[in-house]
Amino acid sequence: MKMVIAVVQDQDSNRLSNALTQADFRATKLASTGGFLRAGNTTFLVGTNDDNVPSLLQLIRDNCRARDQLVAPISPMGGNADAYIPYPVEVEVGGATVFVLPIEQFHHF
Amino acid sequence: MKMVIAVVQDQDSNRLSNALTQADFRATKLASTGGFLRAGNTTFLVGTNDDNVPSLLQLIRDNCRARDQLVAPISPMGGNADAYIPYPVEVEVGGATVFVLPIEQFHHF
Amino acid sequence: MKMVIAVVQDQDSNRLSNALTQADFRATKLASTGGFLRAGNTTFLVGTNDDNVPSLLQLIRDNCRARDQLVAPISPMGGNADAYIPYPVEVEVGGATVFVLPIEQFHHF
Ligand code: NI
Ligand code: NI
Ligand code: NI
Repeated sequence: MKMVIAVVQDQDSNRLSNALTQADFRATKLASTGGFLRAGNTTFLVGTNDDNVPSLLQLIRDNCRARDQLVAPISPMGGNADAYIPYPVEVEVGGATVFVLPIEQFHHF
Repeated sequence: MKMVIAVVQDQDSNRLSNALTQADFRATKLASTGGFLRAGNTTFLVGTNDDNVPSLLQLIRDNCRARDQLVAPISPMGGNADAYIPYPVEVEVGGATVFVLPIEQFHHF
Repeated sequence: MKMVIAVVQDQDSNRLSNALTQADFRATKLASTGGFLRAGNTTFLVGTNDDNVPSLLQLIRDNCRARDQLVAPISPMGGNADAYIPYPVEVEVGGATVFVLPIEQFHHF
C-alpha cells in the first residue's frame, strides 16, 4: 500500500479528479499554493495498492503533464496601440510534482 | 513515531477534534474534499509514538465510524404533494479513511 | 529523498516561504488549523534530497522557533481604567512541528 501525493495546477485539477474516479482511485483533495508549481494548485492524496502505482502515475502524467500553451498577452492599459502589437506568447502550463510514500497500515472505519 | 493521516466527514470533525485533545493527541486539521468520502471532509495529521497508534485508531473509529442515519428526503419543489410522500430514508454517514506512515525524524522548535 | 512536513504559525509563514525560495527549496503550502500549535497555521510540504534535510531543518528553526513576545493585553471594555493597568505581557509565539518522512519515488511531469 502506498500514499501518492500529487501537487497539480488548478487548471488540471478537475480533469485529474474525473480521471481518477473513472479509474476507481479514491482521492482526497486539498487546496494548496505556491512552491512546487505556480500559485494556485491542488494537492491530491491517493492511497493505493503497490500494483496500481504505475497506472496511477501514468494517469497523473496524462492529465497534468507540463505543456506549452499560446496565451494572448495583456495589452498595456491606455497604451499607444500602434506601438504594441499583442502577439500570443507561449507559456508552460500544467505539470505535476508527485511523491510516493510507504504506508504501514491502512484502515477504513 | 508515526504520522497518522485520517480523512473524516465534516460532521464528525469537531467531535474527533475534542476527543483527540482530551486524549492528549495533537492534530493539525486541513479542509479537504471528495474522493475517499463524500465531499466536505477534514484531513487530520497526527504525530504519535508507536505505542499510542492503537488507541488513536480506536478513538478515530469510535468518533467517525460509518453508520446509518434516517434523513428526511427533500420534497420536490412545487410537486404534487399527494403523489409523493416523503418517508425518511436511511443513508450512510460518517466513515474514516486512515493511513499510518512511518516517520524518520520528529522535531519541535 | 525525503518529504518534510512542517506546521508553523501563520505569522511566520511568509518569512519561512521567502527563506525557502531563497535557498532553492520548493514548498507547497496548505492552510491548516489547531492542534500542534495554536489555531491559524500553515502546513508546508517540502520534498528534498537526504543531504539537504539538515539545512532545511535549520532554516525552519531559524524562521519559526518559539520565542517570547511582549504583547499589549486587551483592556476590559468599559471597565474601571484606574483599577486595571494594562502592562504588556509576555506570550510565546512561533514554534514549528516538523516531520521527516521517507519517500520511495519522486516524479516531476
Ligand atoms: Ni516543473
Ligand atoms: Ni466507506
Ligand atoms: Ni510547542
